[in-house]
Amino acid sequence: MDLHPVIMAGGSGTRFWPLSRKSRPKQFLPLASALPLITETANRLPPLSRMQDCWVVCGAAHAKAVHALLPKVPRAQVLVEPVARNTAPAIGLAAAAVAQKDPAGILVVLPSDHHVGDVQGFRDALAEAAVYARQGALVTLGITPSRAETGYGYIHLGEKLGKGPGRRVKAFVEKPDAAKAARYLKGKQHAWNAGIFLFRADTMLTEIHAHLPALSEGLSQLMPHFGKSSWTRKLGQVFPKLPSISIDYGVMEKAKNIVVVPAEFGWSDVGSFAAIPEVREQDAAGNVLSGLALALESSGCVLLADAKRPLAVVGARDLVVVDAGDAILVCPKDRAQDVRKVVDELTRRKLGRYL
Amino acid sequence: MDLHPVIMAGGSGTRFWPLSRKSRPKQFLPLASALPLITETANRLPPLSRMQDCWVVCGAAHAKAVHALLPKVPRAQVLVEPVARNTAPAIGLAAAAVAQKDPAGILVVLPSDHHVGDVQGFRDALAEAAVYARQGALVTLGITPSRAETGYGYIHLGEKLGKGPGRRVKAFVEKPDAAKAARYLKGKQHAWNAGIFLFRADTMLTEIHAHLPALSEGLSQLMPHFGKSSWTRKLGQVFPKLPSISIDYGVMEKAKNIVVVPAEFGWSDVGSFAAIPEVREQDAAGNVLSGLALALESSGCVLLADAKRPLAVVGARDLVVVDAGDAILVCPKDRAQDVRKVVDELTRRKLGRYL
Repeated sequence: MDLHPVIMAGGSGTRFWPLSRKSRPKQFLPLASALPLITETANRLPPLSRMQDCWVVCGAAHAKAVHALLPKVPRAQVLVEPVARNTAPAIGLAAAAVAQKDPAGILVVLPSDHHVGDVQGFRDALAEAAVYARQGALVTLGITPSRAETGYGYIHLGEKLGKGPGRRVKAFVEKPDAAKAARYLKGKQHAWNAGIFLFRADTMLTEIHAHLPALSEGLSQLMPHFGKSSWTRKLGQVFPKLPSISIDYGVMEKAKNIVVVPAEFGWSDVGSFAAIPEVREQDAAGNVLSGLALALESSGCVLLADAKRPLAVVGARDLVVVDAGDAILVCPKDRAQDVRKVVDELTRRKLGRYL
Repeated sequence: MDLHPVIMAGGSGTRFWPLSRKSRPKQFLPLASALPLITETANRLPPLSRMQDCWVVCGAAHAKAVHALLPKVPRAQVLVEPVARNTAPAIGLAAAAVAQKDPAGILVVLPSDHHVGDVQGFRDALAEAAVYARQGALVTLGITPSRAETGYGYIHLGEKLGKGPGRRVKAFVEKPDAAKAARYLKGKQHAWNAGIFLFRADTMLTEIHAHLPALSEGLSQLMPHFGKSSWTRKLGQVFPKLPSISIDYGVMEKAKNIVVVPAEFGWSDVGSFAAIPEVREQDAAGNVLSGLALALESSGCVLLADAKRPLAVVGARDLVVVDAGDAILVCPKDRAQDVRKVVDELTRRKLGRYL
């Protein structure tokens, strides 16, 4: 098989505090099941691709966790960023590394912290998308919207390409306001940009050369050291100087040969605690409960309790309560985006040990 | 001084779970300040009365805690009920015990789990009430209502007695509905029954003899053993057979010589977590915060956190969150009465170790 999954695990975020910490960002949390999101991400790939063809890009602080959670991914294929430099350098690094072995190999870029409800549908969509990638396209999956979401970027769908599901891309569209999002939902000509991309290694390196020459130059300096003892030192010199830019802005929005494959497979980006009900079983009153959570006369709540400490909630609606052992969060579900403010407040109060 | 405070500490309740437990009911919790309510109750008595004249009635499970918290109360004056038998037997026991030393001594019956904001006003009211008690009346303090409260019993005020503040009692009134409570508030002829009573020991024993002959008979059997080695055994035999009845129903509503002294002294019965803002300092947004509680864009909340575990609340209004270390409670303030339902649920789930 020519598919090389590249699991993007460099993210850090604050919307899942107190579960997420600097040392344990979202992708390492078991938010959708008993397994961490990154483990689920890897587990849903076979038989479409083999674990030994899998790559991971992550920060230095998390390499150990990646090795532990994904032991079948060869250690040399866990690319450790000395500093975070957004997605273009990470993907460029992966493309260059894959190209050394298999220039026509297809990278399947996958966020490490999303959930997929219909795993077979997901693999089918990737297999369809890979057809276009093999022909030299930069392919992105476009998730068919199920609601007027204002939190995602959209892809404006263009003309159909022959008999397959692929379509040209008219434009990548910024996060819309509520009115625009409603129009997009109704018009059926827009899809969510889920950050899932497929392309040949050589295709991407050509595009980077064209649109991000500084990144291309950096990769050229780096790659002769790949797999050698000088790699880590060289990476530490070169990587921090690479331009910090997303693959969307840096390449996808500028390249010509873009294809979008519309798809639906129960995708969720698990964007905040408010998204947990999308990916977890609910009780009859719409509560998601874990650990020793007791929901009395309560509905629509997300109650993530400790396994040994009872968390009793009485008469609440649409509330998030999370007991992380050494810290507790309570907020209405519609304020889950603001959990990041807690992190600022803890910093201000010199309580950084809880971050 | 002829005043003998009798602190009624036999209560057990479930509205302060998870702070209150079977082994540590409300009166032993520092709900209004850093001191337990029972300690505050004793501390507000001097110089009106001396600690060595103070009595406490409590359950067997709590005698040790009473000795520890009120070390200046003579151990022999801590009357330990082998079983709970409501207030009439408890008060009868205290009256009989005081009568052995000082038949004309005045008992000042005080709930152990209330809060008083104006301590001098409280002592002044007791001193005024004691005048009527000395003359042979059963005196009750009537708290001037500050809201149309439906959770308390009321006292219908009768004619004034001479120049003093005392008034006759027209009737003891059950907890009213909202409409009645509003009328009571407006009419200014009703006061809250706070369970604070003053009477001479001999007066009460006479009334008990008249209205509760079974209790009177039991006390007669018991009292020859008071202060002797046979006391505990005898109490264990006789007390469980005493009628379980409140002093209100058993005596106050039947006796003729009842006087009510209206008073205002920042009284609160601290009836639930929702009452905490009545007795504790609030921040500018009306939140009561303790321990490592962080209220972000939140108002009207009662957040009782652990001293070492951050409790972050974002975007909440009128919410109660309590971290008791081994258990956590969350409920809207207007559902604080329903906290008792958690106790039922924990029992049902065989989680009785958290009760």
